[in-house]
Amino acid sequence: MDKTRTVRWGILGTARIAEKVSVAIQQASNAELKGIASRSTEKASVWASEFKVPASYGHYQELLADPEIDAVYIPLPPSLHAEWTIKAAEAGKHVLCEKPLAMDVNEAKMMADACSKNGVQLMDGVMWVHHPRTKMMKEKLQENILGELRRVTSAISFCWDEIPLQNIRLHKNLGGGSLLDMGWYCARAILWVFDELPVKVFATAKFVNEVDLNLSAILWFPDGKRASFDCGFDSCMRKWFEITGTKGVLNCNDFTRPWDLENPEFQVCDTFGNCEKLKSSTHLQEVCMIESFCDNILNNKPDDSLVNDSIRTQIICDALGESAEKEEIVIIKS
Amino acid sequence: MDKTRTVRWGILGTARIAEKVSVAIQQASNAELKGIASRSTEKASVWASEFKVPASYGHYQELLADPEIDAVYIPLPPSLHAEWTIKAAEAGKHVLCEKPLAMDVNEAKMMADACSKNGVQLMDGVMWVHHPRTKMMKEKLQENILGELRRVTSAISFCWDEIPLQNIRLHKNLGGGSLLDMGWYCARAILWVFDELPVKVFATAKFVNEVDLNLSAILWFPDGKRASFDCGFDSCMRKWFEITGTKGVLNCNDFTRPWDLENPEFQVCDTFGNCEKLKSSTHLQEVCMIESFCDNILNNKPDDSLVNDSIRTQIICDALGESAEKEEIVIIKS
Repeated sequence: MDKTRTVRWGILGTARIAEKVSVAIQQASNAELKGIASRSTEKASVWASEFKVPASYGHYQELLADPEIDAVYIPLPPSLHAEWTIKAAEAGKHVLCEKPLAMDVNEAKMMADACSKNGVQLMDGVMWVHHPRTKMMKEKLQENILGELRRVTSAISFCWDEIPLQNIRLHKNLGGGSLLDMGWYCARAILWVFDELPVKVFATAKFVNEVDLNLSAILWFPDGKRASFDCGFDSCMRKWFEITGTKGVLNCNDFTRPWDLENPEFQVCDTFGNCEKLKSSTHLQEVCMIESFCDNILNNKPDDSLVNDSIRTQIICDALGESAEKEEIVIIKS
Repeated sequence: MDKTRTVRWGILGTARIAEKVSVAIQQASNAELKGIASRSTEKASVWASEFKVPASYGHYQELLADPEIDAVYIPLPPSLHAEWTIKAAEAGKHVLCEKPLAMDVNEAKMMADACSKNGVQLMDGVMWVHHPRTKMMKEKLQENILGELRRVTSAISFCWDEIPLQNIRLHKNLGGGSLLDMGWYCARAILWVFDELPVKVFATAKFVNEVDLNLSAILWFPDGKRASFDCGFDSCMRKWFEITGTKGVLNCNDFTRPWDLENPEFQVCDTFGNCEKLKSSTHLQEVCMIESFCDNILNNKPDDSLVNDSIRTQIICDALGESAEKEEIVIIKS
């Protein structure tokens, strides 16, 4: 294996999302999966054999101490992201951290600082931005066919049959709640369109266990642009956004992951309702994410815009969370 | 002509929307168009000959005094709706009044009272609720395939190239603004789904000339149900709603008027993104509206639910307008 061409990965924790990302690391052309760590030696070892990972570690710190590992993926609960990202950075590892990046923007900035200081890359685990469809949609936006951009509307939800009170998504101290879990995607999508922070936000939520089971939001941007979204664990699966300009509308019905992986589509409609359906290539977005992350490392060109996007997403989510608790408008200081 | 089988119509004013409705009256099986009134004798007479209407009147009151007229359609600016609806009711005429019904709910209730006292029917000019597609969508909702209803999202907009400051839609004293013009449809759609008033609302708007050029809103309903919409004169044409339940989503991309009149469609999707496209019959909704209105009269069964829907829509719009001015939540007292 040509070490100059691959990044050697370790994974901290055996959460379910780690399975998908481990496969992506194994499939990526410039990555190899070297180790898995769990708080339980046995769990790590079982996982390693199931997913064909050479090394297993009974403590996260052990994995971080391994000089054969260049980068780590952190699928731990949000409340542990800062601690382990910073420890990984201090151990000289690049960090791909599952979203939400952190519990709040202070943590997020500490993580970014630690990575910057140690010369390692930090990125959150939002996959859809790495799908070729996303680039294609951005190109359409840049062609200016929508006219002046006015607003983004988005919705992401799924529905539990019964509320699983044990689920970490329903524990405030672990970083639960629909805003950080799903609203993170909506906020990122809105940022991806407008590429600037809102000036103020308003949100309302239904709380269970002090955690938002759902949330609806309005975001005000400079020049009168606006966005709104809803997210939640209590409505049928949705994952769409609509970008509206003066002359056209761009719709994507499944931006976080295509309903049909073979048909990553979106459509652009004009003011008469005439729509053009566009289809991108069908790369797996999790593999694209890993390859893009590794490319930056191998070419020694860390992409600051990725950290910046994570931090801005966190700023928006912090403000939305505060607004939802008070049910009042929250100003975002620039 | 069998007088027991037709309602004889007059129109108060020659606004552009009157052209479409006059054609609908002429096409409806149980209606005939007898007269047109304008403040100008000449304008009325020219209009009458162009649209083949037997009688023309140089004053609205003259038309109301004609015993050969059973019902009037009022396409005047909103600020004149109360005055002329009440005068028409006192003259014993049934009233189809263009939306928004009134400037505020006090006016709306005075209009409803005057019609009730004089034994005439009152209805607002929202056409889409009379389209056969609407009944078909309601049946789908009642089949309970969406599970428990959670939320409605809606958007209605069109875009002026330049803001026409002379347009009555931009004059506050005439009843202008995107909320009353287009938000009226969104509010009605939300009411049509939930069939109850929200408990509170929040709205924000961009004001020009003291009139809302656009507006974004969140509405809270009993049992945690929620709705949101945006409307405006400054974004590409849109006219959709999405109804979300725990198990499914119903989408209609053109509920106020099908993009393609020959294809009045909507779709129902499940939680896996499997969608069924449904198509209704293709009746012209303005003709359906007139025929339904006339049926009620001819069968001597005035439909109170129609007035009730208008008044509830007005209550919602009043609260949204107040909220948008203050940018604060407004409670709706039941």
